[in-house]
Amino acid sequence: MIGFRLLATAGAARRGRLETPHGAVETPAFMPVGTVATVKTLAPRDLEELSARVLLANTYHLFLRPGHERIARLGGLHRFMAWNGALLTDSGGFQVYSLAGAGEVGGEDAPAAGGGREAPGLVSISEEGVSFQSHLDGSRHFLSPEKAIEVQEALGADVIMAFDECPPSRAERRYHEESLARTQRWLERCRRAWRADGPSSLFGIAQGGLFPDLRRRAVEEAAALDLPGYALGGYAVGEEPEEMWAGVARDAPLLPREKPRYLMGVGTPEDLLQGVAAGIDMFDCVLPTRCARNGLLFTSRGKLVIRNARYADDGRPADPACTCYACRTFSRAYLRHLFKAGEMLGLRLNTLHNLHHYLDLMAGARRAIEEGRFQAFRKERLEAYRAGPD
Amino acid sequence: MIGFRLLATAGAARRGRLETPHGAVETPAFMPVGTVATVKTLAPRDLEELSARVLLANTYHLFLRPGHERIARLGGLHRFMAWNGALLTDSGGFQVYSLAGAGEVGGEDAPAAGGGREAPGLVSISEEGVSFQSHLDGSRHFLSPEKAIEVQEALGADVIMAFDECPPSRAERRYHEESLARTQRWLERCRRAWRADGPSSLFGIAQGGLFPDLRRRAVEEAAALDLPGYALGGYAVGEEPEEMWAGVARDAPLLPREKPRYLMGVGTPEDLLQGVAAGIDMFDCVLPTRCARNGLLFTSRGKLVIRNARYADDGRPADPACTCYACRTFSRAYLRHLFKAGEMLGLRLNTLHNLHHYLDLMAGARRAIEEGRFQAFRKERLEAYRAGPD
Repeated sequence: MIGFRLLATAGAARRGRLETPHGAVETPAFMPVGTVATVKTLAPRDLEELSARVLLANTYHLFLRPGHERIARLGGLHRFMAWNGALLTDSGGFQVYSLAGAGEVGGEDAPAAGGGREAPGLVSISEEGVSFQSHLDGSRHFLSPEKAIEVQEALGADVIMAFDECPPSRAERRYHEESLARTQRWLERCRRAWRADGPSSLFGIAQGGLFPDLRRRAVEEAAALDLPGYALGGYAVGEEPEEMWAGVARDAPLLPREKPRYLMGVGTPEDLLQGVAAGIDMFDCVLPTRCARNGLLFTSRGKLVIRNARYADDGRPADPACTCYACRTFSRAYLRHLFKAGEMLGLRLNTLHNLHHYLDLMAGARRAIEEGRFQAFRKERLEAYRAGPD
Repeated sequence: MIGFRLLATAGAARRGRLETPHGAVETPAFMPVGTVATVKTLAPRDLEELSARVLLANTYHLFLRPGHERIARLGGLHRFMAWNGALLTDSGGFQVYSLAGAGEVGGEDAPAAGGGREAPGLVSISEEGVSFQSHLDGSRHFLSPEKAIEVQEALGADVIMAFDECPPSRAERRYHEESLARTQRWLERCRRAWRADGPSSLFGIAQGGLFPDLRRRAVEEAAALDLPGYALGGYAVGEEPEEMWAGVARDAPLLPREKPRYLMGVGTPEDLLQGVAAGIDMFDCVLPTRCARNGLLFTSRGKLVIRNARYADDGRPADPACTCYACRTFSRAYLRHLFKAGEMLGLRLNTLHNLHHYLDLMAGARRAIEEGRFQAFRKERLEAYRAGPD
C-alpha cells in the first residue's frame, strides 16, 4: 500500500513524496514507459543511473505476451524485469482503444492522440467490458473492470489503474456523457474487485473530455470512493496544447489534495511544466523514448534533430548543459553517425539522454518548489526551450 | 608503436602482453568487432566492464561513412567512439571482396565464409588495387595498399593491417598462387607507405589457402620485412573446421616467435581453444555479436537458442556458470520474452553475455597457460561445451 505526503507547495504546484512497497518516489515525478517489461533499449541499471524511481508498464501488452499468469509464476513483474523501484501499470483500456484506432500495435508505439473507436470492428464495448483482437495474432480477448484488476494484481505493480474508456477529445458531448457514466460504473466495479489490503494501490481515473461540468462530476464521484490516488485521463488525445493546459489547470485542483495526482500520457517538456504548475504529481509519456528512436533529442534549448547534416562535424555534446552519459561522452557527430548507420547504440544513447532530460527537469521543478521559486524556474526553462538549439 | 612480450608458454600455447599507445592487452586476446565505430548494441563502458582491452573496427565501412577524414578532423577513431583502449583496424580488403560476394553489407554482417570475387561486376582487382562500389549508394571507390594505409593512419588505430586479397579456401591452386604473389607485392607497398615512426603499428598478413608450401612462402617473405606483428588470413573462409585447425597448427609456429600472432576472423569458442593451442595470440570474429542478435547464446554448456519454447518458464540464468550482468540479473524466460517481442534490450543483453563468454574463455586460457595446465583446461572446456545446455 502506498502513502503520500505533501512536503511543500508553490501556488498550485506541489512537492510530495509517494511511499511505495518498492521505495519512495519524489514528486512531481516522470515515469518512463516500459511497455513490454522493458524501457526500450535500456537496462534497469541505466534507469537507476538516471534516478528513475517509478516505471509504467502496459497491461494490454503483458496480458497478451508473455501473459500475466506466466509473470506471476516467475515471481511478478518486478522480478521478471529486474526492476526494484516502483511500478505502475495502466489498465489496458487505452491500448485496446488506440489499437483499434490504429489497427496496429499500441503502447509505446500507439498514436499519442486520436485513439478510440475508429475501427469498431476490432473492438466491441459493452456494459460488461471490452472485447478485442490481439495485435499479435488476431486472437479474441476480453477485458472487464474485474479482469483488468486481476491482471494488474497478478503482475504485482505498486500502483494499478482503474479500467476506463478514454474517448477522443473531439467526440461529441453525448458520447462523452454516455462513456463517462459507464466509466464511473466500471470504477465502482474496479473498487470492489480490488484487494484493498494487498500490495497494489488502486488509482481512479477522471474522464470527461473538455467539458468542465463532466470533469467536475467525474472527479467528485471518484473522490467519494476514497481511493489511494487519482488520475486525469483523456488529455493529449486530440486537443490543442492550450486546451489541455487550461483543462488541467482547472481540473487538477478539484482532485483530493491529500492524494497523489497523475496526468496520464502527458507529455512534452512544456506540458510537464504546465502540469506541475497546475498541481500534478505524476506523469508518464512515450514521447522521450519514442522520439529518441526517431532521432529527436530534447535539450535545454529545445528539440535537436540529430540526423541533420549540420551536426556531421559537430564535436559538441547534444546538450552542453546536460550531464547524462551520452552528453558527457559523445559528440553530436558521433550520435548522428550512429543514427545514420542504423546502429542500436544510437537509439540507446538518445533514449538515455531524453529520459535524463525529462527526469532532470522534474528534479529541477522539485527543487524550485521547495525553494519557493517555481514560477521563475518554469519561465526560465520555457524561454530557453523555446529558443532552440545553437 | 607496440611492444610484445612473451610471459609464459605451454606447449605451443603462448601467454603474452601487447603494449600499445592505448594500454596493455593481455594475450591470448579476443577482439570484439566494432564495424562502424560501435560494437553493435554496446557502449564503451559496457566493453570496459567486460575487460575488453582491444577492439577491431572495419576500415571499409568507416572509409565510406562517415569517412576517415571526418573522423581525423574529430580527433581520431578513439575519440570519435570514446574508446580509450587499444584499436585494430583491418585494411578494408576483406569487406571489399565479401561485399562483392554477398551483394550487400559486409563487416559485421558479411558472410563468415565464401567471400571473394563471386560478383566480379562490382569489384575489379588490378595490380594497382581494387575498384569497388559502395554498398550504401553504389558510388565507385578505389582502395590500394597505399590508400588503405593512409585511411588506417587517419583513423589512428594502434594496429593497422596490410592490404591483401583473401581468396576462398576452395579456390584453385593456380588462383591462390597468383593472388598470393600480388598480395606479397602489396605487402611491400604497404610497408613503404606506412609511417613506421607513427602511432600505428603495421601487421603483415600471410595468405596461401590450404596449401602448406604457399603458406610457408607467405610467412617467410612477410617475416623478412620485420613488421611489428603478423596475421594468418584466409582461414574460416569455406573450409571445414578440422582443415582450419590443422592448417593453423601447422602455420602458426612458422610466424616469428617474438612477434604477436593474429588469426583473422576466427571463430567459435572451439576454434579459439584450438588457435590458442597452436600459438595464436589474437583473434577477432563477428560470431559472438552476430549470433547474439540472432538469439544464439554461447554458454559453458554449448549453444543455447533463447527463443525455444522450453525456456518460456525457465527462471534460471542463460548460463548459471556465467558472471555477466545478463546472467546475474535476468532469467532465460525474460531473455526469451525480449527476443520474441523484438526488444533491443534483448539483443544487447545477448551481446553482453556472448562477449563475456568469449573474453572469459580467453582469461581462463591465459591463467591456464601461466599455471602450466592449458591442455587440461582445453579438454575440460571442450567437453563441457560439447555436452550442450541442460
